[in-house]
Amino acid sequence: MSEQPWLPTLITSTPQEGYELAIKLSRMGVKSTQPNVELLKKMRPDYAENADSLTKASQVIAINFQTVAAANNYWK
Amino acid sequence: MSEQPWLPTLITSTPQEGYELAIKLSRMGVKSTQPNVELLKKMRPDYAENADSLTKASQVIAINFQTVAAANNYWK
Amino acid sequence: MSEQPWLPTLITSTPQEGYELAIKLSRMGVKSTQPNVELLKKMRPDYAENADSLTKASQVIAINFQTVAAANNYWK
Amino acid sequence: MSEQPWLPTLITSTPQEGYELAIKLSRMGVKSTQPNVELLKKMRPDYAENADSLTKASQVIAINFQTVAAANNYWK
Amino acid sequence: MSEQPWLPTLITSTPQEGYELAIKLSRMGVKSTQPNVELLKKMRPDYAENADSLTKASQVIAINFQTVAAANNYWK
Amino acid sequence: MSEQPWLPTLITSTPQEGYELAIKLSRMGVKSTQPNVELLKKMRPDYAENADSLTKASQVIAINFQTVAAANNYWK
Repeated sequence: MSEQPWLPTLITSTPQEGYELAIKLSRMGVKSTQPNVELLKKMRPDYAENADSLTKASQVIAINFQTVAAANNYWK
Repeated sequence: MSEQPWLPTLITSTPQEGYELAIKLSRMGVKSTQPNVELLKKMRPDYAENADSLTKASQVIAINFQTVAAANNYWK
Repeated sequence: MSEQPWLPTLITSTPQEGYELAIKLSRMGVKSTQPNVELLKKMRPDYAENADSLTKASQVIAINFQTVAAANNYWK
Repeated sequence: MSEQPWLPTLITSTPQEGYELAIKLSRMGVKSTQPNVELLKKMRPDYAENADSLTKASQVIAINFQTVAAANNYWK
Repeated sequence: MSEQPWLPTLITSTPQEGYELAIKLSRMGVKSTQPNVELLKKMRPDYAENADSLTKASQVIAINFQTVAAANNYWK
Repeated sequence: MSEQPWLPTLITSTPQEGYELAIKLSRMGVKSTQPNVELLKKMRPDYAENADSLTKASQVIAINFQTVAAANNYWK
């Protein structure tokens, strides 16, 4: 993961871009634990078709969005 | 998700509108992982009729509400 | 939920009233996902008689209490 | 719960008293959902003898301790 | 727990000592719910040999570390 | 764990290095509970091939990243 730059800054132009960055951060957290992309694809139905798993995924995004929003002073 | 603007600002007029924005943010977190709306509707009874799932959904809203409330300086 | 005003302010007179507002916010998070009050009542034994469910409910209140306490500058 | 005052202030003399207040807040979150003390006592072995339940209880205390510690400016 | 002083301050000399204090806070959260040390030792394999339980334990430490780090102004 | 220095500072040059530090903090939380590295390796498939476990791991990283990002004033 450290090989390729993927997180040059937490600053984004808009809240929506900030939310997308929060999604990216959440996915990198998964990839840092399981870098095998093929395996991740195989697991996808396990969570993408399970209501509680989707809620959990939304929660991780929410936590990362707190960080991105604070970094951008809430785009005020 | 990036196609249509859905989050122009975190600023709302009232705490209640801020809470509604927190609900929206929580739902977008789910949709970003599972964009298939039909599938989401089919899953609805899995969580909307399960007490623990509802608590988990309320928790994601609470986390997003922290962000929205801070962005609005708590509507003070 | 947007029909009736239920959250005019995050400001309360005392920490205890703030805690009660945190409870209210947690319940509104549940109701926003499942507005059917009869169904919610039927589910009540599922979580009110389950230790882990009660811990989870207490956690959502704790997260909302963080928000309310910050809004009130911790009643200092 | 609103009948008896139990949370007059978030201010404590020491970090340790603050931690004890965090424990109290966590317990009040449980009691607000299940006020039946007899039932709570009966449930006690369900979580007090289960490792994951104890971790969850410790997490709620940690979240409440964040609030109490901030209220006391970290006792600095 | 209130008998013996165990948390005189949140201030530590280094981030690493702060992390160790976060571990201590997490363990005290468990002990406050289950003070029976023998029982806690018996439960140890239940979580120390379970991957999800270890992740949950790490999460409680992370939350307490947020508090300790803020108390120390991030050792800046 | 206290034997070897592993956390001299929370300051990093870039957000990405901060994210890597958050991963390290999350792993140290696991190791502090289960220091047996061989046992941890054996458990790896339990969570690295389970979608919900990966989400939980990503959540702990997200919480630690909040701390590291705040320590670095969001690299602004």
